[in-house]
Amino acid sequence: MDFNEKTIKSDKIYLGKIINLRVDTVLLPNGHTSTREIVEHPGGVGIIPVTDNKEVIMVRQFRKPVGEMCLEIPAGKLNFGEDPYECGVRELEEETGYKAKNITSLGHFYSTPGFTNEILYLYMATGLYKGQVKPDEDEFIETEVLPLEKLVQMVMQGEIKDAKSIIAILKADMLIKNT
Amino acid sequence: MDFNEKTIKSDKIYLGKIINLRVDTVLLPNGHTSTREIVEHPGGVGIIPVTDNKEVIMVRQFRKPVGEMCLEIPAGKLNFGEDPYECGVRELEEETGYKAKNITSLGHFYSTPGFTNEILYLYMATGLYKGQVKPDEDEFIETEVLPLEKLVQMVMQGEIKDAKSIIAILKADMLIKNT
Repeated sequence: MDFNEKTIKSDKIYLGKIINLRVDTVLLPNGHTSTREIVEHPGGVGIIPVTDNKEVIMVRQFRKPVGEMCLEIPAGKLNFGEDPYECGVRELEEETGYKAKNITSLGHFYSTPGFTNEILYLYMATGLYKGQVKPDEDEFIETEVLPLEKLVQMVMQGEIKDAKSIIAILKADMLIKNT
Repeated sequence: MDFNEKTIKSDKIYLGKIINLRVDTVLLPNGHTSTREIVEHPGGVGIIPVTDNKEVIMVRQFRKPVGEMCLEIPAGKLNFGEDPYECGVRELEEETGYKAKNITSLGHFYSTPGFTNEILYLYMATGLYKGQVKPDEDEFIETEVLPLEKLVQMVMQGEIKDAKSIIAILKADMLIKNT
């Protein structure tokens, strides 16, 4: 069935550093009109670095919107026009100091399609070797190495709370177990 | 290490129907200041209904921010002060027409903690029996029943793109396989 919502009017509310906000007035399938609050985001990339011993290099950082430190996979926003793969390679080295011989796609997903167009691309990095840590200025992160098996348990027990990290951990685990 | 970012100033940009936007000026650990664009969201609940035959009742709906139909688990926003469990029970019946004898928590997560405080609570519903479909006015959804095993394949092949649905499918599958 076609549930497409035609845009009648689009109001730009805010143009920001990372996100924009617009409110669209739409025509619903039943002829009514409604509004949709939409956060525009450039998209991002998460990359799960898995060592030969099946350990994962995670990063811990403060996330202001939720007011707490989050344990996450290395990740970053896409620059305008940037290839997700290139972004993943860059963020991996910047945040962990490692480069990778092999980078495998774990697909992409919408973080929360009810109010934002943000797409997150996921990769798994293996065959790791030393590069150079280069965190962004004003970015404060610390790395923590944990067995993949332990991270799967932490996901199931609710100790990993970031969506992209949960998805990357579960997908990487399934991929590794099936190969 | 304490990477806490102290709020110096908070500007309310937009107060909306579902989301609010504010921009906080924060003090970084190195003494610099920066701004954080923060989308405030009331949070939501997703519930994966699994039949005795290990089939899942999914819903398909148009998501304006991404401009496409998405195949998702039944879900809804939390009303102010509402208990997530009660919200899950309500959304399950409203969207699928089923009630459940057993509802198990699958934990909660942050959809994208870099720019929003949205928390999503996940449940699994089993022991399903007929209730009454009551979609919200101006909500257009259709249900689709698919084997859980097939949905896990669809997740791995990138055919399910919604974060909460991916996480609920993989967690439910692991939970069922381990019991």
